[in-house]
Amino acid sequence: MAKQTKTLQDLFHETLKDIYYAEKKILTSLPKMAKAAHSADLRAAFEKHERETEGQVERLEQVFALIGEPAKGKTCDAINGIVDEGKEIMTEFKGSPALDAGLLAAAQAVEHYEISRYGTLKTWADELGLEQAVTLLDQTLQEEKKTDEALTELAETAVNQQAQQAAE
Amino acid sequence: MAKQTKTLQDLFHETLKDIYYAEKKILTSLPKMAKAAHSADLRAAFEKHERETEGQVERLEQVFALIGEPAKGKTCDAINGIVDEGKEIMTEFKGSPALDAGLLAAAQAVEHYEISRYGTLKTWADELGLEQAVTLLDQTLQEEKKTDEALTELAETAVNQQAQQAAE
Repeated sequence: MAKQTKTLQDLFHETLKDIYYAEKKILTSLPKMAKAAHSADLRAAFEKHERETEGQVERLEQVFALIGEPAKGKTCDAINGIVDEGKEIMTEFKGSPALDAGLLAAAQAVEHYEISRYGTLKTWADELGLEQAVTLLDQTLQEEKKTDEALTELAETAVNQQAQQAAE
Repeated sequence: MAKQTKTLQDLFHETLKDIYYAEKKILTSLPKMAKAAHSADLRAAFEKHERETEGQVERLEQVFALIGEPAKGKTCDAINGIVDEGKEIMTEFKGSPALDAGLLAAAQAVEHYEISRYGTLKTWADELGLEQAVTLLDQTLQEEKKTDEALTELAETAVNQQAQQAAE
């Protein structure tokens, strides 16, 4: 039985556990994606994002500390589904010139999930008066947006053109 | 065994099936979310998006026709995971003043998944020279971005403030 009526604070805590699990999952996926990538630029982008993700996990641990809760994840079905789709692409398009385009698409689906979650958490932190959490969450949100833009740039230029040329 | 090396055209077709499945899943979820919402504004936003989604499904069917393939979905683990998380929120926060904030967050995660997929499909359609598909996919992409903005506005104003006040 629920102890009491749940509040926005509970929702914030639940969603924090969700994204903490997601970031850890992403940390285990990025090296595999980097290894699979054909393009050196794409590999470098994944490696850079892996380093960034480590910093993002640390920021989340600071937010847990701010609300007096232990840093603990909770299975996030959404990120599991998104990562599984990426794995499927890696298997189905192994050896294909379109593999990098598929990896890019998978990475952008991950980024958009994160952008949505950090945007939500930042709004709630603001409403809960957690100013330091707002700053931390916004730092990560801006990083995620930049990563997504960098991936879009890669998608629109080199990587997909390569796939297209190879297919002609 | 794979018949031939897979191309960007194959990747486009696979991803089209993925988002077609996702849109149909979203169509079954939106009425449930509308019914659960406390705020009349949020309910109206979900109902509006349901009507839009019907048009988006039709556009996808036109894109299938353009590439000479039957309109057919393929299980999309990502949207299943995102929708399951939304259902969990509806159960766990039933009767809570924070329920609407949770519904909004779930809806924004859905929007971001769609934004990522339509952005990717539009880029690929362009590279594959499918001009009519670019137009159709871009129409939906712009709709999804507008929906996400409208939800952000709702999240930043009425709905969450209500949750916060009720919790005080």
